[in-house]
Amino acid sequence: MNAVLAAEVGRRVEGLQALLLSQGLTGALIVQSADVVYYTGTYQNGHLYVPVEGKPVFMVRRDFERARESAAVESIVPLKSYRDIPRVISEHGLTAPEKLGLEFDVLPVNVYLQYGKVFPAASFVDISPLIRQQRAVKSDYELEALAESGRLLDAMLAVVPRVAALGETELAMAGMFEGEARRLGHQGLVRFRGMNPDFFMGHLLTGASAAEASYFDGPVSGTGLDQTFAFGAGRRRLEPNEPLYVDYGAAYRSYITDATRVFVFGRLNGRLERAHHAALEIQAAVLDMVKPGVVTADLYDAAVRLAQRAGLAEYFQGWRQPVQFIGHGVGLELNELPVIATGVKEPLAAGMVFALEPKFVFPGEGAVGIENTIVVAQDGARRLTNFPDQIQHLS
Amino acid sequence: MNAVLAAEVGRRVEGLQALLLSQGLTGALIVQSADVVYYTGTYQNGHLYVPVEGKPVFMVRRDFERARESAAVESIVPLKSYRDIPRVISEHGLTAPEKLGLEFDVLPVNVYLQYGKVFPAASFVDISPLIRQQRAVKSDYELEALAESGRLLDAMLAVVPRVAALGETELAMAGMFEGEARRLGHQGLVRFRGMNPDFFMGHLLTGASAAEASYFDGPVSGTGLDQTFAFGAGRRRLEPNEPLYVDYGAAYRSYITDATRVFVFGRLNGRLERAHHAALEIQAAVLDMVKPGVVTADLYDAAVRLAQRAGLAEYFQGWRQPVQFIGHGVGLELNELPVIATGVKEPLAAGMVFALEPKFVFPGEGAVGIENTIVVAQDGARRLTNFPDQIQHLS
Repeated sequence: MNAVLAAEVGRRVEGLQALLLSQGLTGALIVQSADVVYYTGTYQNGHLYVPVEGKPVFMVRRDFERARESAAVESIVPLKSYRDIPRVISEHGLTAPEKLGLEFDVLPVNVYLQYGKVFPAASFVDISPLIRQQRAVKSDYELEALAESGRLLDAMLAVVPRVAALGETELAMAGMFEGEARRLGHQGLVRFRGMNPDFFMGHLLTGASAAEASYFDGPVSGTGLDQTFAFGAGRRRLEPNEPLYVDYGAAYRSYITDATRVFVFGRLNGRLERAHHAALEIQAAVLDMVKPGVVTADLYDAAVRLAQRAGLAEYFQGWRQPVQFIGHGVGLELNELPVIATGVKEPLAAGMVFALEPKFVFPGEGAVGIENTIVVAQDGARRLTNFPDQIQHLS
Repeated sequence: MNAVLAAEVGRRVEGLQALLLSQGLTGALIVQSADVVYYTGTYQNGHLYVPVEGKPVFMVRRDFERARESAAVESIVPLKSYRDIPRVISEHGLTAPEKLGLEFDVLPVNVYLQYGKVFPAASFVDISPLIRQQRAVKSDYELEALAESGRLLDAMLAVVPRVAALGETELAMAGMFEGEARRLGHQGLVRFRGMNPDFFMGHLLTGASAAEASYFDGPVSGTGLDQTFAFGAGRRRLEPNEPLYVDYGAAYRSYITDATRVFVFGRLNGRLERAHHAALEIQAAVLDMVKPGVVTADLYDAAVRLAQRAGLAEYFQGWRQPVQFIGHGVGLELNELPVIATGVKEPLAAGMVFALEPKFVFPGEGAVGIENTIVVAQDGARRLTNFPDQIQHLS
């Protein structure tokens, strides 16, 4: 077992145990992959039992050997059936859970009902808000992985000039870009918390395609190839003087950074150029405000005021159905806390990491703006993505 | 609205209504993306209410306009809150659901509990087995999309000789392969039903890497890049005389086909060659047995007998933790019914589509074998993937 990882995972488990104690819980059963990675350092298919006091037990369905080689957990046992969970817990000297925390935001109903049969005397409580709250503040160990992820993302964005070509389809350019991202070390999948992620890496869009709205809870979506997967690159071809909009997540050791850049052959019209400039001003103003203790809604409100002052409020963060946020936490998943959104009165804390994405979307024309992933440090914002922010002119 | 799609979706909804009636249900609320695609012809984020009698109502959170343009459903309304669902149902002249079907296999607990508040008088029933049963039998409309998906997969496999190179890493070859797959029309994501898909397209593995087991419920997994995403391509480099194992799903209009091929620079050793040959014989024997009415376990048992007769039973379908199946249904998701597995006494029906994948895995050496996607036709098996089955020699 890697000693550094073991110490790191030990601290995470202790953090969860403090939260369990504060809520009067006996323990937590964790099964979702990103949460299992967080509390074991690895992912294999299994149930991690974290008692409020004592050592966790990782009950592994598959692959047991691989979990044993890689998980930073002392007690790892093979599991055949849900019915064996209480016995395993008891055999490890732990008391039967009375008030058991579960990941209600992602746990399927039939697993929940199985737990009800296995623990007939227990009551169940949603601990997903606690887990998400803990995971929002990154450790130095995590910040190192996130910094590497940011470097990967910078290297990915540097590929765009090589794969972009006038007359080429979004799909072909996205394919080349994603293939190069993989070669650079991208694991392929960016995890997204929830039942219907319908997302894998990001989107490369041309001109008006970037003004399409979709199921995806972001300012920009794209048409996708067809209506059954109506997101991301489609078959539209890149034309001169229109934005090539590239928004991708990098994933390094599962740690995600997220950035957006705008490229163009020729020159964007004046309104789009002004809007991009306004997005950079909003980014600068928000980054200036970022420090521990600042309330996230204040960042959002400041961004909206600047969009209004630029006379571009109606295009800010999407059209028809603009999103009500300008940033979202990233880490093991693309949609973590904090959310930098209207009405969210949560204070920032040192170690939080989020993607800040002020954007303007013009129907029939496309999207411009910026996205970078930043760390909330004691003395302000620190960028993890450093590819140049300006509109990139291609030739 | 596309009239052909509307008629198709109408038949699917009628099929579900017959199942709801048979179970004494008042209606079903459907939210999972593949199921929404199936019963509306599109995917946007929303709740589809299917009453046991009458027209469905699609309540869309986002994007409403896009759902209205593309969904083959007459009644489409915007939805702001769960609390509005009963009112919308009543405004459409439908009775309040008393016994409501939900997708228990994928629905998160907190959505389930919300439904409990919104429908305090209703009881909830798991309809995921009914939906999966209905979706297992494909219509002619679906078979056309699946045939196109199979052609895409054949074209993808033909790319391998161009991206494979001695000394190259799995990751670099996988990236080039996936990029070309996208260019050829792959939507990028292969949907996988469940909480932790941790899967996006497939895996390209070299030699001994293909003998790694993982969380993934298949005969072959790969190392992945690191233990937090321990599946698929890693950094191992291709050597001569070892199998290059390529197992990918194609997705065309979200319809998935799945195939595996083995490539080699030089020549595999005699045992691996014999094992590949045995896999082809198993495939041929099983395909000969396939027709409506045949019990799936009989196919599995016949395959195991042939593996035993070849003296290779201990390597069949994985090592350390071999899977107990030789095939799995495919359609809008990679893990559909039927499962061709030990003890599964379900009869095949005409229109079922599954990937048949007899494989042999040798620790320290790698994996060989075959996978093709087939349709159960009235007169037997019909292949959807037609790239040559033999070991492909590269130079």
